[in-house]
Amino acid sequence: MQTTGFAAYAPDAPLAPWSFERRDLRADDVALEILFSGVCHSDLHTCRGDWGPTYNPIVPGHEIVGRVIATGSAVTAHKEGDLVAVGCFVDSCGHCDNCEKDLEQYCRNGFTGTYGGRDRVTGDPTQGGYAKHIVVKDHFVLRMPEGLDPSKAAPLLCAGITTWSPLRQWNVSAGTRVGVIGLGGLGHMAVKLAAALGAEVSVFSRTVGKEADAAALGAGKVVISTDAAQMKAAAGGFDLIIDTVPVKHDLNPYLPLLDVDGTLVIVGQVGPMEEAVTVPLIMGRRRIAGSLVGGIAETQEMLDFCAEKGVLPEVEMIAMAEINEAWDRMERSDVRYRFVIDMATLEG
Amino acid sequence: MQTTGFAAYAPDAPLAPWSFERRDLRADDVALEILFSGVCHSDLHTCRGDWGPTYNPIVPGHEIVGRVIATGSAVTAHKEGDLVAVGCFVDSCGHCDNCEKDLEQYCRNGFTGTYGGRDRVTGDPTQGGYAKHIVVKDHFVLRMPEGLDPSKAAPLLCAGITTWSPLRQWNVSAGTRVGVIGLGGLGHMAVKLAAALGAEVSVFSRTVGKEADAAALGAGKVVISTDAAQMKAAAGGFDLIIDTVPVKHDLNPYLPLLDVDGTLVIVGQVGPMEEAVTVPLIMGRRRIAGSLVGGIAETQEMLDFCAEKGVLPEVEMIAMAEINEAWDRMERSDVRYRFVIDMATLEG
Repeated sequence: MQTTGFAAYAPDAPLAPWSFERRDLRADDVALEILFSGVCHSDLHTCRGDWGPTYNPIVPGHEIVGRVIATGSAVTAHKEGDLVAVGCFVDSCGHCDNCEKDLEQYCRNGFTGTYGGRDRVTGDPTQGGYAKHIVVKDHFVLRMPEGLDPSKAAPLLCAGITTWSPLRQWNVSAGTRVGVIGLGGLGHMAVKLAAALGAEVSVFSRTVGKEADAAALGAGKVVISTDAAQMKAAAGGFDLIIDTVPVKHDLNPYLPLLDVDGTLVIVGQVGPMEEAVTVPLIMGRRRIAGSLVGGIAETQEMLDFCAEKGVLPEVEMIAMAEINEAWDRMERSDVRYRFVIDMATLEG
Repeated sequence: MQTTGFAAYAPDAPLAPWSFERRDLRADDVALEILFSGVCHSDLHTCRGDWGPTYNPIVPGHEIVGRVIATGSAVTAHKEGDLVAVGCFVDSCGHCDNCEKDLEQYCRNGFTGTYGGRDRVTGDPTQGGYAKHIVVKDHFVLRMPEGLDPSKAAPLLCAGITTWSPLRQWNVSAGTRVGVIGLGGLGHMAVKLAAALGAEVSVFSRTVGKEADAAALGAGKVVISTDAAQMKAAAGGFDLIIDTVPVKHDLNPYLPLLDVDGTLVIVGQVGPMEEAVTVPLIMGRRRIAGSLVGGIAETQEMLDFCAEKGVLPEVEMIAMAEINEAWDRMERSDVRYRFVIDMATLEG
């Protein structure tokens, strides 16, 4: 199937239109017309080669909401006309212990990224969601539950599941004391999801003035991380801290804020952290962990939860042609809280 | 009660004899004649002020095996003649949630160190186990189970419980894949205890030649940490790594060795670690944690386990007068694996 999208032709090039081929349907494939595509910082990092070299042209985008337009002969879970979604990966080996435990994101043989990966059958580069159409293996296609606004849901497929998975892994429920560092695309979803789970949510901010925003998202409190007295008063007061900051930073101010057996989960920075002092880890049996998106079953669970609880990302809709400006703004953190591309603005 | 011990009169002074007063028995106190006292690296760090200034004279020692010689009027758990033991702390608030959960080591109001602390009633400095006698509140006195050789058991009270607690916290049992970094006082106990729990134990070593020692302690395998091929082959192969290295070091070579949901527990280095790269944490949902000794109930459990399974530290017995030479050797890692002072060599 011929389709069009916006691609990076080189690491330092702006995104530009590209006409390319999607594979013919295999028996277990689902073809989607993409309706909405979320804009994630990873899109930019990958296209610019920040995480290593990639191929060109490359079409980014891994927060995809669309409608089924065709299905392969063996597909039973989805049918033409269904609203569906696709997230950060589109295949995995399917037979390792992690795949069998619905942990496809930790596939022993490596998952296949929605873009920046290689098709497991042909070896062809995968191309993402900044496009009119995509073809995805049925297991990796999520059902969009009724009542979840498709124009806003796309960021759930990365920002949502990336914060949902650690909230579930670390048993967040009514009364759990959750802190969130960084109030961007991921952070604002961490606040909304934790609050919807019944947690007492605090936001850490370097500056005053975020109280109204934080409260609107569901956080009961803002702790000014540059205020030593406030940080001292917060010591030992958290069961879980979700750290969404996407650059190298210092964990030492945050570790004493965890209670005994509390965990700080890193989901933002992929790379080095500043030197950590072990004293709070040892003296309070505290933990630092990481977490990567979530499995397919867990992603479906999150979508269903969001539909049930009315949780949706805060989005700013843009046209496909505005993507380069949106990336510039994203780099300046000038977005509240996630851009979504209305794919109807792209000529098919 | 007048007693004698070996004390540091100044941070840079060798230990020397000191005659000093133990408190009169309170209703819930137990008086011990100390028979054996283990020698821990912390003794040296504290006396030299490495962890902050302390008082002088100070008597170190928190691995204590002794015999009850008197009990306060309210003591029922111990009686004259009993073989008992005392570890790293001798009091805590007793009423906070952590104390009530048998986690006295994480007492909200701070535990009282066996030395380097302040008595909660009088405020007097506490003095440790390099002495003929000690007076300790009954709750903090452990029963020495029958069959546990008192001349070898002392190091269980710090090196033993420090490694036992994370093995239990992280559910080590038959078949759990446990790695141990550093084969000193703590590390050799981690190997013995993990093996006795049925784990598959590997030792990480920078140099070849430790195979026989490791095997004798119960480790099935030695991984040479400076051999890139061996480390790569070990990737994803551990559920738990106990890191006993007592100096600043680099965790990055070890993090990829953990399996999904695996944990590296730091029990050695109290201070800064080198910069860690978050990639293995995120890509494999791995964790870094800390752990501090163990609670009183857990320490009793460990002693009972050791008696049942015949687990004992490897010790080198010294006379009290040899302590300064022993500290010199300990600093050079010239001990296999723990010095124990025979307190009968100290004139009362």
